[in-house]
Amino acid sequence: MLQSKPRSSAPAVRSAELIAVGSELILGYVAERNCAFLARELTRLGLAVRYATTVGDDEQAMAETLERAIARSGIVIMTGGLGATEDDLTRKVLAKVTRRRLILNEELRDRIHARYRERGAPIPAGAERQALVLSRAHLIDNALGTAPGIQVSGPHFWLAALPGVPHEMEAMFHAVVSGLLQVRFGLRPLSRLRVVRCGGITESAVNERLRPLFPEWPGSIGMIARPGGVDVWLLSGGRRGSLAIRSRRPTELDELAALEREVRLRLGEAVFGVDEESLELVTGRLLHERGVTLAVAESCTGGLVTHLLTNVPGSSEYVDRSVICYSNRSKSDLVGVAPPLIEEYGAVSAQVAWAMADGARRTSGCSLGLAVTGIAGPTGGSVKKPVGLVHLAVSDQSTVTTQFHHFHGDRTALKQAFALAALDLLRRHLLKTAV
Amino acid sequence: MLQSKPRSSAPAVRSAELIAVGSELILGYVAERNCAFLARELTRLGLAVRYATTVGDDEQAMAETLERAIARSGIVIMTGGLGATEDDLTRKVLAKVTRRRLILNEELRDRIHARYRERGAPIPAGAERQALVLSRAHLIDNALGTAPGIQVSGPHFWLAALPGVPHEMEAMFHAVVSGLLQVRFGLRPLSRLRVVRCGGITESAVNERLRPLFPEWPGSIGMIARPGGVDVWLLSGGRRGSLAIRSRRPTELDELAALEREVRLRLGEAVFGVDEESLELVTGRLLHERGVTLAVAESCTGGLVTHLLTNVPGSSEYVDRSVICYSNRSKSDLVGVAPPLIEEYGAVSAQVAWAMADGARRTSGCSLGLAVTGIAGPTGGSVKKPVGLVHLAVSDQSTVTTQFHHFHGDRTALKQAFALAALDLLRRHLLKTAV
Repeated sequence: MLQSKPRSSAPAVRSAELIAVGSELILGYVAERNCAFLARELTRLGLAVRYATTVGDDEQAMAETLERAIARSGIVIMTGGLGATEDDLTRKVLAKVTRRRLILNEELRDRIHARYRERGAPIPAGAERQALVLSRAHLIDNALGTAPGIQVSGPHFWLAALPGVPHEMEAMFHAVVSGLLQVRFGLRPLSRLRVVRCGGITESAVNERLRPLFPEWPGSIGMIARPGGVDVWLLSGGRRGSLAIRSRRPTELDELAALEREVRLRLGEAVFGVDEESLELVTGRLLHERGVTLAVAESCTGGLVTHLLTNVPGSSEYVDRSVICYSNRSKSDLVGVAPPLIEEYGAVSAQVAWAMADGARRTSGCSLGLAVTGIAGPTGGSVKKPVGLVHLAVSDQSTVTTQFHHFHGDRTALKQAFALAALDLLRRHLLKTAV
Repeated sequence: MLQSKPRSSAPAVRSAELIAVGSELILGYVAERNCAFLARELTRLGLAVRYATTVGDDEQAMAETLERAIARSGIVIMTGGLGATEDDLTRKVLAKVTRRRLILNEELRDRIHARYRERGAPIPAGAERQALVLSRAHLIDNALGTAPGIQVSGPHFWLAALPGVPHEMEAMFHAVVSGLLQVRFGLRPLSRLRVVRCGGITESAVNERLRPLFPEWPGSIGMIARPGGVDVWLLSGGRRGSLAIRSRRPTELDELAALEREVRLRLGEAVFGVDEESLELVTGRLLHERGVTLAVAESCTGGLVTHLLTNVPGSSEYVDRSVICYSNRSKSDLVGVAPPLIEEYGAVSAQVAWAMADGARRTSGCSLGLAVTGIAGPTGGSVKKPVGLVHLAVSDQSTVTTQFHHFHGDRTALKQAFALAALDLLRRHLLKTAV
């Protein structure tokens, strides 16, 4: 998906590898979630993650994967298999592969027991297992759970084993592992990868606008379509696939900043944020800065617009209320859409979106109203109003803007596309409002 | 997490391996989603998935991973890398590793061009690449996209390469790949793994109730806590980790059915469904069967309850409307909660939940009202009403049931726990209603 050719080959960068352990993962009953987080964080530290392997609670497969990872990558981060049950084999496999002993740490055992008691939970039979410590290894404190992590090094490898529970793992990575890696390998958390996030624009439109930059920035610009928009990836000095990174000279960062400026210049207000900033976060920030309140009237999105907005901590400050008017009568009852309007134009129409946004604002006394009405399917579409059609509207005291789109996908994808388009319409409306 | 010891060792089962290709995956900017689906489907066919590896668009890493997978697993399914750009290397790597040539298939090229034209999309420069066909390979038709899949076999391996777009990949697996595997390896899509899904119950409570079954069913019962409930896994004749499966005698299925009966007997109405049935699907089915309509009043869940309910196709039949009353005033405006009630008991109270559910039902004219009010945090908690507290209520013409819970987790996790608890309360209420 890179739009331009790689530039000259570059010296190899230190590589890292991820291993996720858990039968629930390899049987497919739980989706693996830790590798994406770790890959992003390690990339940001300038490491090249080349492989991420998922294995079950299976001693042989774990040992085989771990041995190969240590041999080919040097830096390995494992998640999972540190719990209290017999199926939790990470400690045992680590001991075997690194040829170390497991020793019961009595102080740790007492601490683990105390943690169970604090939570009012019974101490499981295998709790002692969690207090087995690899010889010549460091423990990584787990402030949010019972299982500590393990950090162990050898002449040719550096390994950290963390619990599989995502919020425990993420907290431990930020609190301890990232710092250990930085010190041990002289890394600095620089951004040699910058993701510029765009809303309300298609991949081909982004491609057209950025095309003039490709010759000057070979191998540096990539893009990937996301629901509701496009992420543009900017890389300094290397090729995305192999992640070869040149030395961390300051010029590389300058280069990335210069490229970002060029890209923003061409994409304008389609750009809503960078890296992990979500559309709901950015839109929420604008609502907060403007000191406005919002009422939402949703139909086909069934609450998703408001769910996204209220995922942002502090959103109760600007999200006053929302009505999900699935039936025609509820559109009249809740936001005062005149029944003849629905009869004349249909529930999915610019006119009804207009009336819903305006009604949501007026009936609530909020500064802004946002409305969505569309056809998420699989049934309910017609030739004139096909599945995927959505009408949006945003209303303030003086202006109502309506907009429609025709998206493709299944019901879940369409709900998401509709909701993100609505948030983007709101964001662009807020951008036009002076602070 | 298995609660009991494996029974005797069993003959090895045919093993399979998954490879996901994409730099966006290995850089962590897009979460890998295909492996969970494929692992579940292959497990259901009686295959043992032991490894799932993610690699970037990196020729060397792809070739290395593919060679190892073919050598150790025999059956390999790859996803991704079949697009039209230079970064899409799956075809090239397949040709190299299987020592075959790539030949331009002109008919396929014309078909691909036609598909782009149908969609009104410009034909990308690399579209021709997608018409390169491996010698002695089969094409797998892609009804939903442009890139066909590839099936290729050798004396010791069977491989399918599918596009990385989840809905295309899933459709192609169901339409073609599953059947090819069944025919080639004499598989039948049996359920030797059954997941019994429970709501509104903790893992330790499930454990207590099922404990009497462990001695009789060694290695057959596992459980995993999920948001809002617990999944109980039932396996016939083998150990989960290694997935050794004995011959597919009918007795094995009988055994699984007998075990499921025993488990259901002990878990009662905590069981809401099996395998992939979601709580919203099951609850929606009950609403449909009862011929009732629903109005929802949400506070802290911010639309998530209604979002989940409306993810189910056909939900517009029973979901009439929903109000998300974040502010106190909106609780009065939208569902008629008396302001003195909020002053006296606070917005997060059984009394206000009661009034919201009853008000949602009365003001809408629906058969049922469902209400959620709680504290999702991170701020807004107090000693008496901590973050994680939620009050729920469900109301019909004659009865209002209120319930409260205290959950742990971050804002996102709490919203999910609250919403699932509300759906479970509704489900249990519907179970008590005669059809």
